[in-house]
Amino acid sequence: MPEDTLTNRLYEQIAQIPIRDPHTHISPHQPAARCLDEILGYHYYTELAHSAGMPHNPLRPDYPPRERCRVLLRYLERFDNTVQASWLLEIAQTFLGFPKSRISAEDADWLWDKAELVMSAPDWDKQVLTRSRIEEIFLTNDFDDPLEGFDTRLYVPCLRTDDLVFRLHQEGVRQRLARATGIEIGEVRQLRHALDRLFEHFVRHGARACAISLPPDFTPLPPEPGVFPRLDSPSPELSRYVFWTLAECCQDFGLPFDLMIGVQRGVYRHGVPQGQDLFDQRTSLSQYRELFNAFPRVVFCVSVLSSSQNPELVAFSWIFPNVVASGHWWYSNLPGFISRDLTVRLQGVPKSKLIGYYSDAYKLEFVLPKFNMFRRVLAQVLAEEYVRGRGWSEEDAVQLARQILYDNVASIFPAAKRTE
Amino acid sequence: MPEDTLTNRLYEQIAQIPIRDPHTHISPHQPAARCLDEILGYHYYTELAHSAGMPHNPLRPDYPPRERCRVLLRYLERFDNTVQASWLLEIAQTFLGFPKSRISAEDADWLWDKAELVMSAPDWDKQVLTRSRIEEIFLTNDFDDPLEGFDTRLYVPCLRTDDLVFRLHQEGVRQRLARATGIEIGEVRQLRHALDRLFEHFVRHGARACAISLPPDFTPLPPEPGVFPRLDSPSPELSRYVFWTLAECCQDFGLPFDLMIGVQRGVYRHGVPQGQDLFDQRTSLSQYRELFNAFPRVVFCVSVLSSSQNPELVAFSWIFPNVVASGHWWYSNLPGFISRDLTVRLQGVPKSKLIGYYSDAYKLEFVLPKFNMFRRVLAQVLAEEYVRGRGWSEEDAVQLARQILYDNVASIFPAAKRTE
Amino acid sequence: MPEDTLTNRLYEQIAQIPIRDPHTHISPHQPAARCLDEILGYHYYTELAHSAGMPHNPLRPDYPPRERCRVLLRYLERFDNTVQASWLLEIAQTFLGFPKSRISAEDADWLWDKAELVMSAPDWDKQVLTRSRIEEIFLTNDFDDPLEGFDTRLYVPCLRTDDLVFRLHQEGVRQRLARATGIEIGEVRQLRHALDRLFEHFVRHGARACAISLPPDFTPLPPEPGVFPRLDSPSPELSRYVFWTLAECCQDFGLPFDLMIGVQRGVYRHGVPQGQDLFDQRTSLSQYRELFNAFPRVVFCVSVLSSSQNPELVAFSWIFPNVVASGHWWYSNLPGFISRDLTVRLQGVPKSKLIGYYSDAYKLEFVLPKFNMFRRVLAQVLAEEYVRGRGWSEEDAVQLARQILYDNVASIFPAAKRTE
Repeated sequence: MPEDTLTNRLYEQIAQIPIRDPHTHISPHQPAARCLDEILGYHYYTELAHSAGMPHNPLRPDYPPRERCRVLLRYLERFDNTVQASWLLEIAQTFLGFPKSRISAEDADWLWDKAELVMSAPDWDKQVLTRSRIEEIFLTNDFDDPLEGFDTRLYVPCLRTDDLVFRLHQEGVRQRLARATGIEIGEVRQLRHALDRLFEHFVRHGARACAISLPPDFTPLPPEPGVFPRLDSPSPELSRYVFWTLAECCQDFGLPFDLMIGVQRGVYRHGVPQGQDLFDQRTSLSQYRELFNAFPRVVFCVSVLSSSQNPELVAFSWIFPNVVASGHWWYSNLPGFISRDLTVRLQGVPKSKLIGYYSDAYKLEFVLPKFNMFRRVLAQVLAEEYVRGRGWSEEDAVQLARQILYDNVASIFPAAKRTE
Repeated sequence: MPEDTLTNRLYEQIAQIPIRDPHTHISPHQPAARCLDEILGYHYYTELAHSAGMPHNPLRPDYPPRERCRVLLRYLERFDNTVQASWLLEIAQTFLGFPKSRISAEDADWLWDKAELVMSAPDWDKQVLTRSRIEEIFLTNDFDDPLEGFDTRLYVPCLRTDDLVFRLHQEGVRQRLARATGIEIGEVRQLRHALDRLFEHFVRHGARACAISLPPDFTPLPPEPGVFPRLDSPSPELSRYVFWTLAECCQDFGLPFDLMIGVQRGVYRHGVPQGQDLFDQRTSLSQYRELFNAFPRVVFCVSVLSSSQNPELVAFSWIFPNVVASGHWWYSNLPGFISRDLTVRLQGVPKSKLIGYYSDAYKLEFVLPKFNMFRRVLAQVLAEEYVRGRGWSEEDAVQLARQILYDNVASIFPAAKRTE
Repeated sequence: MPEDTLTNRLYEQIAQIPIRDPHTHISPHQPAARCLDEILGYHYYTELAHSAGMPHNPLRPDYPPRERCRVLLRYLERFDNTVQASWLLEIAQTFLGFPKSRISAEDADWLWDKAELVMSAPDWDKQVLTRSRIEEIFLTNDFDDPLEGFDTRLYVPCLRTDDLVFRLHQEGVRQRLARATGIEIGEVRQLRHALDRLFEHFVRHGARACAISLPPDFTPLPPEPGVFPRLDSPSPELSRYVFWTLAECCQDFGLPFDLMIGVQRGVYRHGVPQGQDLFDQRTSLSQYRELFNAFPRVVFCVSVLSSSQNPELVAFSWIFPNVVASGHWWYSNLPGFISRDLTVRLQGVPKSKLIGYYSDAYKLEFVLPKFNMFRRVLAQVLAEEYVRGRGWSEEDAVQLARQILYDNVASIFPAAKRTE
């Protein structure tokens, strides 16, 4: 906690704002962790432990989970400087009543036992939701997700489309699409029909966004009229065709399109699961100019993987009415990057077009410490730039926080009319 | 205003330094605004309002101006977080006596009426100049500007050359050139002769710089000897030829060359006027290496559009004697970017080679709030890095400010010998 | 010195940590300066003076050295804002007893005379080592350096390989290689044999790293099996072949490989010696993906020349176990860049994989002021992010400093088994 009292006061008020988390990987069927292994199994910990020297062996599925946690906490000593380690500490303190200010290898058994105890409560997920003041959790749903068995007002479906755009040439993906929609597409011109079915299904179940992650060299362009790429082999043309058709669906069904730009998959081939992807900074939002021009009614919520691209994101969301600057994604999700990136977004982009933060979490327990990390940075920026720098009242500063963290989630991702 | 008292003291002293503004778009024939519409018509407001949802209709020329201002101030509520909105507030407070600390839609009529009242004073531009302590305003003149009817010591002509470099293939541009110089160029080898006439005309009227904005992929190279690109169709060769010839003229006539690097024109095709341009971060000052080598006696005052390119600008102006780091252009003109970019320029570039700031303003009223924004950042950097960090006296810190803001404008853009 | 007392306390403690400097250009045969000319002759001063207007003439070898220093100090007035000037002041104060807080042209003779006096002491280098608390100085050795006549535990040999990778097509380089190894390579497939001899020689003399600087467009790839590039003409294939073979040697001999990425040589052709190189920001660590995958047992200590590439460096050293983020190189070695780059490295990379700083110095006197510059930034980051921000004890914060500055130099560059 920073010692500045103004910043502290702002933080305390911002921490009262309930959380609407507009992008996560949480499963609505198992939203909270059931044991310490599901906390320490988060790829941030496995990849940092591996980066710091941990071999792959403890990550094998048949490795005893309690022992795996012991191993991970031994390696934690090598990366306890990271902000990811501070999330773990905050989880331990907030949800497990951990009394110390640092976690070391000797705490492994205490943490394991305490986690077993509290996480086995039948209402554990509700406890986490309540203690974290979480109101909405946006999901990342496979396109063939039945979207059933959970409260879609709390767990908001979002259609994730990476499989469609980059793997439609795989027969398995097309079979899943056929099963989900009842439409077998033999050629690409039938795609739109199948996607309409998907979008109908998602919107009917309360979906509020379509989402995709994109590699640095992706450049969406409209399909050439009358030219239809082959379905059965991968090609940039096929990916662009599918992507463009998805944007048309977003327009017709009124869904915002989350673009998470810049990830290169599988760069570190021997990395731990989900710890293999990196990026190439030689990319530009300028690659998306035709898309942004072509779909003025689709709201594109853009995240960039490299903080160096933030100046582009500021400029594009300042100029294009349909481009929204969204959160601090993955490798950009460090307080040092957030502080700089957030400051200039607030200074240059209409406040109605900023999505302050999303957690990207896999388990509910991570939502609070990640949001709190962002809230601390936000409180500092508001104190320095707005209250001290521009003479705003504290109320106005907190209201700005509320808008980018809470109000805008409702206005940018409006709840679709429900036909259920 | 920051609460730090040292910073405040430095700011107060820096604010006493008269303004020499080395790059604006002000018209010497109508330098100040005549009504609120000319303040709110600044593209920063129309584009931000449009970005925040305002349709094009209120920007039509036949739309009633008072009503247009009402509409814009209604949309202002959506971007009152931006620093651009803070310029408006400072203008209202400083020049219109606006008594509140925030502007809302209800203030539209008060502001309109007050602006009508004060701006109709026959000496309004003088009042703004005096209150802003403005000594020099550099202009942006079309190459065929007669440069007459104004005091060229106050309003300093600068030859803007985008039309020549990128649109000489257009017959209209060549006709304007013929009218301005009396020389009809039928082929490109006659260009130098016509340009000499232009430069003579500009220098005779007190011009102190040649200026151009350049797209991210522009790479100046010397023309191949004996090869002359066609005049009547656009080509990179033609643009490079004209550009290189301009650099030769700068050398022969002793004019600095302002290079504003990185803008991509017309990216958002349906944007409001002047609100359509963006950039592609994939550009490098390395593209200018041949130019900087070939013209050691031309001072190149370089601005970059993306803050991410600032490390290059620091390094190139640190190494090349003829490269000067100049201001904080357009999308980089946010305090968060300025703070970082300025800090490292001061730490790495000789102080004699820094042009602190230019306003880029279209109306005199904007010069003061924009310079004040820069002065606040500068005061903070000087307080932290020089007075506290290096033990400089406050006098020395203020003198550093004076050098980069005031002295260097005289030394880098020396007044040409006047033959008038 | 910053006024914050916590930062000051941390700085004082960090300043007690002895220096292990893992990359310099110091000569073990003449490590300290013998006169003021060897201080002011540092390329940072000659290039900044030249950038600020100094002609080449005073840099001629036959120019009287005392007069050269007078000239340089006259030009210093134009760049006394730079951090490089502050190193000079700290050297003058610490090693010459200079009593003032700023250096001006009038101090030239005083400084010259005092330098003559103290630097002529036969144990001057020992005095500098002691006063600077230097324990280890890593060298930059030509591949044909005999590595004799000095204490390799204090002056640690490192094999510099630019000549081999980029100039092996030159007959002179191949002759030097033949003399150094006794192996004349007539074709490239004999290279490995010669390199083995070099590595044996270096490891036998206590070498602890292999090092190279690389241009922005370099992309290491494994040689195509059975294809051998020609030795006698320069080609990307030849450079890649040599580079890959060096990486194999690093693996087999257990040497870390320092990669200093991004320099473009000879950009400013008329620059002063060592003041001609710049960079092109259009580069990516993604170009090194195959290398990092292929050599999991080689530790790659990566430096980047542009601070804009730091987000990539954070991400790659966060993910790849064999990538270490190393120091703040050359144009990135300004406190403003260091502060940002260091903050996010500490937040995102395991502390065991950070090499805090190296001086890159040519003379011992520069090691202390450069490390002190880094230490001030580090103290500030630790105060704000760790002690205030995360509630760490001051001891823990100082221990983090010790790890990245001192402990890691031992663990990342382990002393090879000595066979001497």
